[in-house]
Amino acid sequence: MNYPNGKKKSIHQSSIKHNQEYSNRGMSLEADINVTNTYYLDTDKAVIHKKPTPVQIVNVKYPKRSAAVITEAYFKQASTTDYNGIYKNRYIDFEAKETRNKTLFPLANVHEHQISHMESIIRHGGICFFLIRFSIFDETYFFPAEKLIPYWYEKQKDGRKSIPYQQIKQSGVLIPFHYQIRVDYLSIIDKLYF
Amino acid sequence: MNYPNGKKKSIHQSSIKHNQEYSNRGMSLEADINVTNTYYLDTDKAVIHKKPTPVQIVNVKYPKRSAAVITEAYFKQASTTDYNGIYKNRYIDFEAKETRNKTLFPLANVHEHQISHMESIIRHGGICFFLIRFSIFDETYFFPAEKLIPYWYEKQKDGRKSIPYQQIKQSGVLIPFHYQIRVDYLSIIDKLYF
Repeated sequence: MNYPNGKKKSIHQSSIKHNQEYSNRGMSLEADINVTNTYYLDTDKAVIHKKPTPVQIVNVKYPKRSAAVITEAYFKQASTTDYNGIYKNRYIDFEAKETRNKTLFPLANVHEHQISHMESIIRHGGICFFLIRFSIFDETYFFPAEKLIPYWYEKQKDGRKSIPYQQIKQSGVLIPFHYQIRVDYLSIIDKLYF
Repeated sequence: MNYPNGKKKSIHQSSIKHNQEYSNRGMSLEADINVTNTYYLDTDKAVIHKKPTPVQIVNVKYPKRSAAVITEAYFKQASTTDYNGIYKNRYIDFEAKETRNKTLFPLANVHEHQISHMESIIRHGGICFFLIRFSIFDETYFFPAEKLIPYWYEKQKDGRKSIPYQQIKQSGVLIPFHYQIRVDYLSIIDKLYF
């Protein structure tokens, strides 16, 4: 379709530019991790998948001659982390979070059962971590669960929980961006755990 | 509620008896595995979870002052197996299947991408297997993926794929039933892999 006045086209281009500048070439952390995991899978480097979104199914209709339709369902809170799998014989387990905050990573949406899940994984010998993206800076950090957990138990004066950006910069590892391996967290695991 | 003629009560009792005899005390394999995994988790023996059912969400409504409602969604085919987790530093991955067949275990609902997923898991050092229940006999077998895969590639004369019951009895391991640990597959893993 052509727009002779060129208006639509220019809106589109400016929105691409905006995305490139502010949010990692326009892709969300989740999308970047999916591309990365597919690359790992295709090159037989690791087998790591995102778990399906947990959904409480209430009503299903079975129309004749077509697929079952879920007509009522609700989102459930995840009891574990979003990603797990295997790499070089080791069990891998992680959670990915994005923030637009410039000074801290808020821990409000890291839940208690996720923390106890991560503590169990560490006890049983798994490699457990967070991938944290500061989307304003377009920086993604590898942050071991062992380092995050103490912050989760530490309540601030205002009752909120968070990790200062400077702390993540210091004790986390910045993940380099590559076109094909957008969040190459296995390269960090190689350095830290093998 | 009392039923003076006792009819309802006797129907109820006979249905319990039926379940006890024919389908492992009335619980499905999935329910038994859930009880078992919860026991493993509570006793800190292993961290193994069932993955959520994969669902393609098409429509979501956001009513004011209440939770988001999914009003249209469809079941998706799972690309991996149903269960995974960690036990004694090892990555664990398995699929559970139940059949009412008395002579064979049909492989019709084991999909190609599940087989290639299992092959990858084995290559990367994971412990990968099937839990197969013959519900008529009330028997549940531990069957390593390495032993199942060759049957999957072998097409029978009629084009169907299956494993004879006798083969599963011979090269699988029968899992004993305990009230608390209804499908104690870790006891079999201890014998076969450690």
